[in-house]
Amino acid sequence: MSGKVFRINMTNLSVNIEEFPQKWEGLGGRGLTSTIVAQEVPPTCHPLGANNKLVFAPGLLTGTPAANSGRMSAGAKSPLTGTVKESNAGGTAGQMLARMGIRALIIEGQPTTDAFYGLHVSKDGVTIREETGLVGRGNFAVIETLMERVGKKVGVLSIGIAGELKMASANISVRDPEGKIRSHGRGGLGAVMGSKNIKCITIDDGGAPGLTIADPETFKAASRSFSKSLLAHPVSGEGLPTFGTNVLVNVINEAGGLPTRNFRYGQSEGHDNFSGETMREVILARGGKPRHGCHPGCIIQCSQVYPDKEGTYLTSGFEYETIWGFGAHSGVENLDYIAMADNLMDDIGVDSIETAVAVGVAMDAGVIPFGDGAAAVKLIKEIGEGTPLGRILGNGAASVGRAYGMTRIPVVKGQAIPAYDPRAIKGIGITYCTTPMGADHTAGYAVASNIMGIGGQVPPLGKEGQVELSRTLQMVTAAVDSTGLCVFVAMALADDPEAMPAVVQMINARYGVSLTAEDLVLLGRKILLTEREFNLAAGFTNQNDRLPEFFREPLPPHDAVWDFTGEEIDEFWNF
Amino acid sequence: MSGKVFRINMTNLSVNIEEFPQKWEGLGGRGLTSTIVAQEVPPTCHPLGANNKLVFAPGLLTGTPAANSGRMSAGAKSPLTGTVKESNAGGTAGQMLARMGIRALIIEGQPTTDAFYGLHVSKDGVTIREETGLVGRGNFAVIETLMERVGKKVGVLSIGIAGELKMASANISVRDPEGKIRSHGRGGLGAVMGSKNIKCITIDDGGAPGLTIADPETFKAASRSFSKSLLAHPVSGEGLPTFGTNVLVNVINEAGGLPTRNFRYGQSEGHDNFSGETMREVILARGGKPRHGCHPGCIIQCSQVYPDKEGTYLTSGFEYETIWGFGAHSGVENLDYIAMADNLMDDIGVDSIETAVAVGVAMDAGVIPFGDGAAAVKLIKEIGEGTPLGRILGNGAASVGRAYGMTRIPVVKGQAIPAYDPRAIKGIGITYCTTPMGADHTAGYAVASNIMGIGGQVPPLGKEGQVELSRTLQMVTAAVDSTGLCVFVAMALADDPEAMPAVVQMINARYGVSLTAEDLVLLGRKILLTEREFNLAAGFTNQNDRLPEFFREPLPPHDAVWDFTGEEIDEFWNF
Repeated sequence: MSGKVFRINMTNLSVNIEEFPQKWEGLGGRGLTSTIVAQEVPPTCHPLGANNKLVFAPGLLTGTPAANSGRMSAGAKSPLTGTVKESNAGGTAGQMLARMGIRALIIEGQPTTDAFYGLHVSKDGVTIREETGLVGRGNFAVIETLMERVGKKVGVLSIGIAGELKMASANISVRDPEGKIRSHGRGGLGAVMGSKNIKCITIDDGGAPGLTIADPETFKAASRSFSKSLLAHPVSGEGLPTFGTNVLVNVINEAGGLPTRNFRYGQSEGHDNFSGETMREVILARGGKPRHGCHPGCIIQCSQVYPDKEGTYLTSGFEYETIWGFGAHSGVENLDYIAMADNLMDDIGVDSIETAVAVGVAMDAGVIPFGDGAAAVKLIKEIGEGTPLGRILGNGAASVGRAYGMTRIPVVKGQAIPAYDPRAIKGIGITYCTTPMGADHTAGYAVASNIMGIGGQVPPLGKEGQVELSRTLQMVTAAVDSTGLCVFVAMALADDPEAMPAVVQMINARYGVSLTAEDLVLLGRKILLTEREFNLAAGFTNQNDRLPEFFREPLPPHDAVWDFTGEEIDEFWNF
Repeated sequence: MSGKVFRINMTNLSVNIEEFPQKWEGLGGRGLTSTIVAQEVPPTCHPLGANNKLVFAPGLLTGTPAANSGRMSAGAKSPLTGTVKESNAGGTAGQMLARMGIRALIIEGQPTTDAFYGLHVSKDGVTIREETGLVGRGNFAVIETLMERVGKKVGVLSIGIAGELKMASANISVRDPEGKIRSHGRGGLGAVMGSKNIKCITIDDGGAPGLTIADPETFKAASRSFSKSLLAHPVSGEGLPTFGTNVLVNVINEAGGLPTRNFRYGQSEGHDNFSGETMREVILARGGKPRHGCHPGCIIQCSQVYPDKEGTYLTSGFEYETIWGFGAHSGVENLDYIAMADNLMDDIGVDSIETAVAVGVAMDAGVIPFGDGAAAVKLIKEIGEGTPLGRILGNGAASVGRAYGMTRIPVVKGQAIPAYDPRAIKGIGITYCTTPMGADHTAGYAVASNIMGIGGQVPPLGKEGQVELSRTLQMVTAAVDSTGLCVFVAMALADDPEAMPAVVQMINARYGVSLTAEDLVLLGRKILLTEREFNLAAGFTNQNDRLPEFFREPLPPHDAVWDFTGEEIDEFWNF
């Protein structure tokens, strides 16, 4: 598994190109970013200081023709949670790095002046130039400028104003195939990039050697089988392509687990106003695109292009969790306002889950009324203006809760709880508590089993089996996050006995190794333990693996409560 | 040790009067508040939620004629630090409660409406009445209104607007003998009172039985000896009465430990502009009072009345740490602006240390320029107006640092580091790290030994002996904080071999018991362990017993760095 590591030191603006070392053999994506952070970042350092490092790593299959393999991981110590953090995204950057044989970009140190810089990555190395002229510009303008300067196909990683201002919900934007934006969303990695005074990274893979595949024939066969599995599964083959992730509004509402008005209710009366079904109708009526891939080679295409009433582009990558955060959590039952907010968040560069939850908490504090879409959009603009209120919001839901002296703050380890109420869908509650990332549904998506019966049914309202379910899912997910495959392949992996062998075969054929499915799960297990160890050394304890107190209140309609004891939750780590 | 506990439940607005229980025998002040919090408050509860409790307890000698014995402790889980918290204050309330035989007020639960209440405590019990009319009023107006209503001698505990808004730096104001204000300052206990919707507590000790002293003759002799010790010591007998605590500006500047411009330098060029010597001259020239006691029976009288140019009252209880926070830390080298700020902070009800440090951090973030006194006063007004910027500031220094994405945030466990740089005065650094309270100089005032040679000299710049020094001081201080004696008696306790026996004799004579000095130290030891245990159960670890990373930078003029390893610091708890 050869390759290069590009190491960029921002203290002295130097670059070092290293051979991919033996000790990281077999690692890619999350496995690689978390290992590098664990080995090289002092766990107790300030996340915005010179001792933190920002790592980008394409997955093990990223850059190959495998379906849905275009993801790249970004990792660092998170300024939002204080934990190790991995966040993966689509877009074109990961595949370009992979084709150049770059296994990881490691950005370390910190300039001592206020100047902002851009990195340009090509097969020849990295150049650093001052980009202070781009400071204060939104992500869309930055991407446009860089496309004009470097070329239409340039890969771009950039931060918006939130990242420059080092806000804890700042994300890192990734150019998608159409010049729009995907995001390394969660955990404030954009603030880490901002703390290193990097406004943007451009990638030009011209003249790249391309990937070598050790056994092309086997790869092709496995890849074909894998694609078949994805397309045959009702979720990845039908639900997601048709309605996008927003198919979940009606599903989760029906289950009584759609957190409404800052987690007071499990159902929203107005759910039809912002459901995936409604969204599809609006998109079709306005001449938008109901299907759209976030990276070349995606065959699920859960993204879409949502236009305004005049048919002009309004947003893309319009996800369930974002729509939930405004629609149900904040009561803004109007897809146009939510799409405006989504586009603004992309431009300013903030995580849409963290920000949507923060807006709902601000509504609960009385800053603006519940349901006021125009006021919500105005709040988000304040983030981009860096006003004091914008700073409060841009630092996330916990920041809003602290500023307004609230007790009803839906976060774990400082990160906002997304669109699934843990009282009504208990497996996801275990994931929120235990994942080393802070509340993150993607870390072990127990919703699939609790609500959709994928990979077997574990009833959502009971405690039985949830810890084991979340543990298995978190191990598999940590492995999937290391392959560069999109997390939505997990549905097929769970239900189709041929899918996992196909993934293993693709990895083996790519690298000329001979792993087993068991090895992949063991990889996921090891990643979890590496991440957990970092967090413990940073000062986290079992007491941080808990939901906020208010989840002991019953949630209508099931009047479900969060009834796990600490001891029961801590069983998670007993492996 | 008989007495009563008044228990007020704010969920159902009920009061229960209990006999002082056997299990709390021998406890008063901090020993009692910390024990009650540890026994009755779930360590992981939200500090602003219904499960937290706010406890007031006079010290073991409070209400007796012993010199400087008028202190009362307040305790709860702190919304600023998340730790157990004790903060003691002068004023008249403690002595009044003690004379009525009330050993503790325990306030628990939480109303479910927005109505605010007042408690009235008399020998007959507690009455609760709605005081929504006082909401939005500053502490001075509240005290005036209550004096008019209840009588000139009424004891008052109240919160300002900061407490109503549940800001984490909100304090609890205590009426002093002249109708001015002393404060349970640190750790946001005012927000806990606000979270229980209590605007004020009035105390009327009319008809109180008064204290019984088991052996009045012995008490009188010990008390006389104790007073002699206090007056004979150069600090409590001369330095503090002459210049107030602000005598320290020149002393600490000379030592190179006066944190200047957000802890960048250890000396301030303009120190003469705000020193105790200068302050005394100004007070005398304007017809103010250079000496003034915070409670009846104080013979040190380190407080003062500072008038403006026209001779009108501007502030009192004008402490070194507050003056440092504006003068050196923020560069506002003008006592009049600092006095204005001090008075405003009393009225709004915020801790002056936390707020002064927060203002300096905001200056470092570029919110206002360093040294701009008028702008600093305006910032503080914003706290009282509850603007977004006011919320950021009112939640303390860590809140400002987070909002502005900073790494240079001088806090330990979320609480602002006060006026002594731990690099140049290393013993106090160990206290900042290890006290269960978050950064708090009063918890183990190693400055006395490091800089003034009190109780023997431990050189300030070396590591040797600092852990042992801080440990001894923290044990003694926890005991002194339980007696109701002012912390400034500690100088005499350290240097005069007759002082500690006098204190022990007073306690023995008061209660008819036969403790030894060793017993008092053991009491202090036990209190520390009780507090530590609470914090560990709340999720704190050794990693929280650390100074921020930036203290590894050298501090001029000594170029001293914080060079303790984690293991060396953790030795503190090895007892």
